[in-house]
Amino acid sequence: MSRSVLMLPGDGIGPEIVAEAEKVLNKVNDQFDLGLQFETGLVGGAAIDETGEPLPSDTLERAKKADAILLGAVGGPKWDKLEMAKRPEKGLLGLRSNLELFANLRPAILYPQLASASSLKPEVVSGLDIMIVRELTGGIYFGQPRGVRELEGGERQGFNTYVYSESEIRRIGRVAFEAAQQRNGKLCSVDKANVLEVTVLWREIMNDLAKEYPDVELSHMYVDNAAMQLVRAPKQFDVIVTGNMFGDILSDEAAMLTGSIGMLPSASLNSEKQGMYEPCHGSAPDIAGQGIANPLATILSGAMMLRYSLGEEKAAEAIEAAVSKVLDQGLRTADIMSEGAKQVSTREMGEAVLAAL
Amino acid sequence: MSRSVLMLPGDGIGPEIVAEAEKVLNKVNDQFDLGLQFETGLVGGAAIDETGEPLPSDTLERAKKADAILLGAVGGPKWDKLEMAKRPEKGLLGLRSNLELFANLRPAILYPQLASASSLKPEVVSGLDIMIVRELTGGIYFGQPRGVRELEGGERQGFNTYVYSESEIRRIGRVAFEAAQQRNGKLCSVDKANVLEVTVLWREIMNDLAKEYPDVELSHMYVDNAAMQLVRAPKQFDVIVTGNMFGDILSDEAAMLTGSIGMLPSASLNSEKQGMYEPCHGSAPDIAGQGIANPLATILSGAMMLRYSLGEEKAAEAIEAAVSKVLDQGLRTADIMSEGAKQVSTREMGEAVLAAL
Ligand SMILES: CC(C)[C@H](C(=O)O)[C@@H](O)C(=O)O
Ligand SMILES: CC(C)[C@H](C(=O)O)[C@@H](O)C(=O)O
Repeated sequence: MSRSVLMLPGDGIGPEIVAEAEKVLNKVNDQFDLGLQFETGLVGGAAIDETGEPLPSDTLERAKKADAILLGAVGGPKWDKLEMAKRPEKGLLGLRSNLELFANLRPAILYPQLASASSLKPEVVSGLDIMIVRELTGGIYFGQPRGVRELEGGERQGFNTYVYSESEIRRIGRVAFEAAQQRNGKLCSVDKANVLEVTVLWREIMNDLAKEYPDVELSHMYVDNAAMQLVRAPKQFDVIVTGNMFGDILSDEAAMLTGSIGMLPSASLNSEKQGMYEPCHGSAPDIAGQGIANPLATILSGAMMLRYSLGEEKAAEAIEAAVSKVLDQGLRTADIMSEGAKQVSTREMGEAVLAAL
Repeated sequence: MSRSVLMLPGDGIGPEIVAEAEKVLNKVNDQFDLGLQFETGLVGGAAIDETGEPLPSDTLERAKKADAILLGAVGGPKWDKLEMAKRPEKGLLGLRSNLELFANLRPAILYPQLASASSLKPEVVSGLDIMIVRELTGGIYFGQPRGVRELEGGERQGFNTYVYSESEIRRIGRVAFEAAQQRNGKLCSVDKANVLEVTVLWREIMNDLAKEYPDVELSHMYVDNAAMQLVRAPKQFDVIVTGNMFGDILSDEAAMLTGSIGMLPSASLNSEKQGMYEPCHGSAPDIAGQGIANPLATILSGAMMLRYSLGEEKAAEAIEAAVSKVLDQGLRTADIMSEGAKQVSTREMGEAVLAAL
């Protein structure tokens, strides 16, 4: 049995961090005899530079056929002036939507070794372990109509549409309820049902689903309150489920509570459990090419990929254990550096994980 | 010269905290001979209970004629089951939109006396002083079309419209640039211009306006990054300007960084500087009627009202000084209580401010 993994390094620090993750995946591929085949493709700004398109059809075809995808990051100031349809982000959004990767899982975990990196007080965040389940192929990100039109009198008006159907809400709801079942049985659905009609429907469907999951305790929270509660007392949360836009905001906020967003992986899955895996952080163009980026979020995304899309739990755990070990050894890239630790480069961090495997 | 102030206590803790603010305003009215006339009206759940409407026409007419409005808070579980158009929140939204109160100013200030209340490390938040300028009468809060429709095949779809015209963006932009001029000259405009067309227009207009304010340094940030940066290093911000929905989320997040949202006032202004003033916190139905709510945010909203809508800077400063004094005296309501301080009730806190005046 051979399975294929498509590597999409993308832009900024993407190529550097994906290179380290690839070494790690190659090693567990041998160690555990996984039969993985790796190939590489173009996406984002890198693809624009070579082909003029953020998501070349060749990349999309190979992505559809792959068993899983590991993505670095896309975007950067170089492409910021391009019209919306031709920007690097469209490569990412195109993959999500064409592969129907509707379920985005974003854990926000505080590594005990990195507790001091958080800007929050230790007692507020120690032991933090939240899972954010974000809907990824609907909502205002993809809603039609959208654009800029001219009003009577000649002034322009920009518009987007925030839209969810029952079935879209139901399928992401199920993923979230199931995640809560496997964790501590608490699910908080975040909406703005006191103002937005689309989220009134969201809340109704979540309440409906709750009947099928009597072992999960469902609560609802307005998005403004959720943004507050994440700062005030983040450990009150187990699983959070929300739409695409709110999920974008809250998952980044939650990730930053840990102080080490360079450590956080993510998974985007479709209903066949085919998935795209990527670090929570972005392309960080300001430090690209310097060899100082933290490859651990990408390496841990590789572990998530083994677990969720390839069913290789043991290999996933081996990678996670190796990452924990290098942290125990006191090795730190610049972003998570603290007094008394040893600062290492992107490559040195990758090699240390390899050695720990 | 007589000027009228409409007091709208609203729901939950609203009546308790507005009562204290009214005493304080009455006192400075005498002390500084301001010639203010106070009247009281119904809004929100309280209005629904009496009249069936969250914003009775009588309240709206008097609000339009008033020189300024002081609002407590609206909403609570009692009215959560009502259809959207009949909910307490519609009272608040109706006032904002009918009076064209497009400019919402939400300061996030850390009171040195309350530094330990924050969940963030002292060095991250000490001296924090951010002003969030939120657009309040447009965006997805008011965009049409909106509702729930039936799709082919019978399933329902919820939808809302996120919309801004050039002139709406321009007028809130001007308020923000002017606020930055009066502060530290830094303005950060928050959008999601890599995904949402409406915010591409937003960014364009902000860039355009920047030419008229060469003394203000304008930057742009995506909303997900802003949610992160507020947690990571909030002191990087001076003034933030953003749309209605993002402003709702980010202003609550920023307020919570201080740990003492019970201290934060807000102003909502129209182009004639007529304004509605309210605490940043909500109606807190869980503690309503217990006499333990913190009245200081409402009292400080009264000070903002004197400053922005009534041009009474001295009286405003007197109130602010009195609040600072009671904090120095170690008086604290339950929400900001800490070891060694003296816990007081809502009324005791109000009386202490009166005494300090
Ligand atoms: C790059 C951008 C389009 C993307 C998003 O907004 O979804 C990113 O912020 C993310 O969260 O993965
Ligand atoms: C009560 C609600 C409608 C309101 C809003 O979302 O604007 C509140 O959260 C606020 O921020 O003033």
